[in-house]
Amino acid sequence: MDAPMSDVLAIGNAIVDVIAHADDAFLDRQQLVKGSMQLIEADRAEELYAAMPPAFETSGGSAANTAVGVAALGGTAGFIGKVRDDQLGAVYRHDMRASGVDFDTAAAPSSHAAPTGRSLILVTPDAQRTMNTNLGIAAEIGADDVSQGVVDAATFVYVEGYLWDKGPGEDAVVRAMELAAASPTTKFAFSLSDGFCVDRHRDDFLALLDRGIDVLFANEDEICSMFRTPSFDEAIDIVRGRCELAYLTCGAKGSVVVSASETHAIPAEPIEELVDTTGAGDLYAAGALYALCRGADLETSGRLGSLAAAEVIGHVGPRPAVSLRELADAAGLP
Amino acid sequence: MDAPMSDVLAIGNAIVDVIAHADDAFLDRQQLVKGSMQLIEADRAEELYAAMPPAFETSGGSAANTAVGVAALGGTAGFIGKVRDDQLGAVYRHDMRASGVDFDTAAAPSSHAAPTGRSLILVTPDAQRTMNTNLGIAAEIGADDVSQGVVDAATFVYVEGYLWDKGPGEDAVVRAMELAAASPTTKFAFSLSDGFCVDRHRDDFLALLDRGIDVLFANEDEICSMFRTPSFDEAIDIVRGRCELAYLTCGAKGSVVVSASETHAIPAEPIEELVDTTGAGDLYAAGALYALCRGADLETSGRLGSLAAAEVIGHVGPRPAVSLRELADAAGLP
Repeated sequence: MDAPMSDVLAIGNAIVDVIAHADDAFLDRQQLVKGSMQLIEADRAEELYAAMPPAFETSGGSAANTAVGVAALGGTAGFIGKVRDDQLGAVYRHDMRASGVDFDTAAAPSSHAAPTGRSLILVTPDAQRTMNTNLGIAAEIGADDVSQGVVDAATFVYVEGYLWDKGPGEDAVVRAMELAAASPTTKFAFSLSDGFCVDRHRDDFLALLDRGIDVLFANEDEICSMFRTPSFDEAIDIVRGRCELAYLTCGAKGSVVVSASETHAIPAEPIEELVDTTGAGDLYAAGALYALCRGADLETSGRLGSLAAAEVIGHVGPRPAVSLRELADAAGLP
Repeated sequence: MDAPMSDVLAIGNAIVDVIAHADDAFLDRQQLVKGSMQLIEADRAEELYAAMPPAFETSGGSAANTAVGVAALGGTAGFIGKVRDDQLGAVYRHDMRASGVDFDTAAAPSSHAAPTGRSLILVTPDAQRTMNTNLGIAAEIGADDVSQGVVDAATFVYVEGYLWDKGPGEDAVVRAMELAAASPTTKFAFSLSDGFCVDRHRDDFLALLDRGIDVLFANEDEICSMFRTPSFDEAIDIVRGRCELAYLTCGAKGSVVVSASETHAIPAEPIEELVDTTGAGDLYAAGALYALCRGADLETSGRLGSLAAAEVIGHVGPRPAVSLRELADAAGLP
C-alpha cells in the first residue's frame, strides 16, 4: 500500500504534557532553569510530580505539535513517534488522529518497563514554560520506524533536535535524512529544539548541517549557541548558504528568514496577552512549512509562521485552540 | 490514628474529565442531550472518544470538585472515591493531594478490569457541557470505604446523587448518613447532581430527604424534577422545612437559600465571559459549605457560593484556576 501523500512528515518524541502553573519560587526550590527543557529520569519525575500543583494533561511533543499545526492549517501531516500501549499512549494516539494527523507508529507493548513519555511543564506568571521531560518509551523510536514510503510521500520531513538526547532516535533521523536525500521531491527540515539541547549535541548538529539540512528552524538562543557567538547578526551570516532556508525566531521581536540571497525580517503577530510560550516554535514551523508547500514566497511563509505561533502562545497548551485555517484566511494568508 | 479534622468530607465518583470543544452538530450526530450527564459503558466510551476532537485531561468528579473548592478557599477537605492503580488513577490522586485535599481511599489493583473512571465532556460554543461518563472503578466505592473516624471529624459530609447510579455507591452514602446522624457535630449534605439523575432515582432521593438531609443542593431543573412540578416557586415551598437548608441555583439568575424561616435570593456573580459551566454547582456548594463552617449567615454563604461558581465557569475545566481565597478576600467574604 502506498503511503498517503503528506505536506509534512514529523518525527519526534511522543510526549504527554503535564501542565501546571507555578511561581518562580517553586522553580527555585526545585532548582529548575526557567525556559529550558531538561531530561529527567523516572525517579526524579515522580518526585517533581509529587511536588507540583494540580495539573492537566494534553498531548504534546515538539515535532508532533508541528504536525498538528500543519493539519490545523488544512495541510496533510503524518507523525512518527513512540508511545506504549498504556492509558496515556491511548490518549496520545487519540489526540493526534483527532487532530487529523496520520500516526501509525506501532506502540510498545504494555509489558515494556518504560511508559509513554511525559513532560512536567511549569508555566510561570511571565508565561515562560519550563519543561522536565521523562522520555520513557519515546526514546525507543528507531530507524526501523521510518520507512521509505512515508518519506518519499512527504514534501518535508521535519525532525526535532531533541531526538538526539537519548536512545536510537538519532538513527531514525539519519535514516530519514538519507531517504529524503534519495528522494527527488522530499526536503529535510530540522529544528534545533532548545539551547541546552544544542549545547549537548553541537558537533552532531553541525555535522548534520554539512550533510544536508534543507530547512533549519532555530530561535535566537539556539542559533547563537550552535555557532558559539553572542551575536545574532553574526549567526545569520554564518548560517546563510549552509542550508537552503533558515527560519530564525526571536520571540516578541519577530523572526528572520534567511536564504542564500534573501533576508526577510518578519514582525511578530500582535497578541492580546502572552499566556504560555509552550509550542511557539513548533507552530511557527508549522505555518512556515505549510506555506512553502502551498508555493508561498519566503516572507509569506514567515508571516504564516508568526500567525500560528501567536495563536498558541495566547492560551495554555502547545497546540492550537481555535481554527488556524480561519485565522489564516482572515489574514489573507495561504 | 485520629482522622484529620475537616470542614467537608466529600464522597463521590472519582472521575478524570476528558474535555473537548465540539459544536451542536457533533452532539446531534452522537445523539447526545446537551447539558446532561449520561452514563456510558466501556464500548460506547471507546466509540465516542474515537469520534471526539483532541481533548485534554483534568481531574474532576462532582463531589471531588467541591472538596477542591473548599481547600482552595482555605478550608480543610477530604475525599472518598475509588480509582484504579493505573496512570489516570495516579494523575487523579496527584491532583487531589496537590489541591490540598486528603484522599486516602485505597486504589483498586491494576489487575482489576475496570479502569479509573472517565467522563467524556463536550463543551459547546454556548458554554454548556455535555458529559458522558464511564464510571469504571469509581462505581466500586462502597460502605467499607467510609469509616466512622473521618465522618466524625468532618463538619459536613457532602455526597453527590450520582453515587446512586451504579454499584454499591448508595451503600457508602447510607453508611455516611448513618454515621453523620450518630455524630453530634457532623451534618449531612447532599447534591441532586443532575435532572436525569433525579429522574432515575427520585423515590430514593425523596426517601433520603425524609431520612435526614441537613443541607440540600440542587439546581432549578433538579429540584423541579424531584417534586414533579414545573414551578420553581412551588418547589421552594415544598422543600422548605424538609431539610434544614436548601441551596437552589438558577444559573445566571442566581440562587435561593431556603431555611424553615428564611428565604434569601442571591444574585449571580457577574462574569466577563461564560466559557464552560462544568463544575458550577460543585463550586457553589464549596463556597456555601465553607462559609457555613466559618459561621457565616445564610446570605453570605450563598454569596460565597456564587463567587466560587463564577470563577469556575469563566474558564474551561471543573476546578478553580486562580486562588479562590484571594477572590473571596477581595470581595470581603469569609
